[in-house]
Amino acid sequence: METGKFRRSQRIAAMTSLLGNYPGRLFSLTEFSQQLDTPKSVLSEDISIVKETMKVLDIGEVQSVAGAKGGIRFIPKMSLHRQKEFLEKLAQELSQHHRILPGSYLYYSDLISLPAYVQPMAEILASYMKQSNPQYVVTVETKGIPLAFAVARILDKPFVVARRESLMTEGATVSVNYVSGSGNGMQRMVLPRRAIEPGSRVVMVDDFMRGGGTAKGMQDLMKEFEAEVTDIGVLMASKSPEIKKGGRYTTLLILENAEEETGKVDLYPNPELFQE
Amino acid sequence: METGKFRRSQRIAAMTSLLGNYPGRLFSLTEFSQQLDTPKSVLSEDISIVKETMKVLDIGEVQSVAGAKGGIRFIPKMSLHRQKEFLEKLAQELSQHHRILPGSYLYYSDLISLPAYVQPMAEILASYMKQSNPQYVVTVETKGIPLAFAVARILDKPFVVARRESLMTEGATVSVNYVSGSGNGMQRMVLPRRAIEPGSRVVMVDDFMRGGGTAKGMQDLMKEFEAEVTDIGVLMASKSPEIKKGGRYTTLLILENAEEETGKVDLYPNPELFQE
Repeated sequence: METGKFRRSQRIAAMTSLLGNYPGRLFSLTEFSQQLDTPKSVLSEDISIVKETMKVLDIGEVQSVAGAKGGIRFIPKMSLHRQKEFLEKLAQELSQHHRILPGSYLYYSDLISLPAYVQPMAEILASYMKQSNPQYVVTVETKGIPLAFAVARILDKPFVVARRESLMTEGATVSVNYVSGSGNGMQRMVLPRRAIEPGSRVVMVDDFMRGGGTAKGMQDLMKEFEAEVTDIGVLMASKSPEIKKGGRYTTLLILENAEEETGKVDLYPNPELFQE
Repeated sequence: METGKFRRSQRIAAMTSLLGNYPGRLFSLTEFSQQLDTPKSVLSEDISIVKETMKVLDIGEVQSVAGAKGGIRFIPKMSLHRQKEFLEKLAQELSQHHRILPGSYLYYSDLISLPAYVQPMAEILASYMKQSNPQYVVTVETKGIPLAFAVARILDKPFVVARRESLMTEGATVSVNYVSGSGNGMQRMVLPRRAIEPGSRVVMVDDFMRGGGTAKGMQDLMKEFEAEVTDIGVLMASKSPEIKKGGRYTTLLILENAEEETGKVDLYPNPELFQE
């Protein structure tokens, strides 16, 4: 690249932009040093400035990884205070009575597909999911796909979607049957044999959890790949049953009640996320 | 925010990061001015630096919108040269003989779910899609969802997924039947009535196009919403039939042939994208 020398402010703009466009990806200092035609020692100072600014402005975390294979990466991340603010606004918006559908279902397909909402949802979930250091982010089609993909993007991990039926275009597949918590009876989920490496650690992301049947199904499916579901994250979980089949999970919102007759929705941020 | 004054390099890091984390979104100067506790006149200079750097380093475009409702936004964007480089690498990777499945299908579910691949694919498609100034990005479940969502994110537009069957949790729906180009016979696509505002302009994004039956189905479905499909973008289109039912479209790759017997795949970047 014949870009010549850059000033500090330009180098910082370049690095911040690349880090933000590919969150979770490790950029080596050598890579930046070549692209920006700047010695590593000078870059280190630039990086300190970026790091400090992201922190002070509550935008995210710039992590340094030491060693020959090291470098820096960016994880978008909000403070607990901003998380709470966002989830309260979200709960309020989802509690509007016009969202209650026949059968006391809540309409939220629009919000879980709006990039401006999905990004903060995914940032919060990713901050929990990344603790178990997963190799894949999985979901079951369809509604949770944008959110799950946004989490995979932040963690920079491959994203895998289990389907309800196998496709001709995916080769050999593995499937399990499971009992859906939402009372749809038996369901099936399918994955191509080549979708997951044996022995992997995966996290599951979904839009909604009631009885945890889908999560349990995913655990069974992963066993067929000798893989393990190390964490589960959902946008919203019903308050009851308190004990879900899938075991431990993280939810952003708790749905206690939605009444078609009265138009009343009782939905709030998961208080466990904000305990001291 | 009690952050006090920031230095230029810090202001630039902050703005670049916010712009990159929410591509397509218009940030007003007032917003930045308050958050960074800096007069607008000073910010304008900072923005010029960001703009110039993004351009020189081939990262993207920072657009200024004038007027009271104006501000700046960031559109990630690669030069034609880098687009070509990326698509050539992608075509090569997808042409590996182990990807050919029985029935001469090509396995590519892994690559269209890897964030590091989906981001550049979406950047290229978005640069075409945005020309028709859409209000929504739509797709049909399932395989194209990550790519379509990534395009929606870059354009900062609501994302809508048509499903194959209606769900109890989505209220009143509209559906059409269509003939799938991949020879699966009649299929159905369904959308909640409240998914699209009447009179909207939408762009469709999908992973693959053969006969264009799905695109035609989407056009029919949109008519039911008095909406119009103004553009279609796909990752890959088969060379034949040359004329697709859905009409005008943009494809990144062209699949001319995949032979199960010989393991030969003939797949290449769409030359029309790189014409002078």
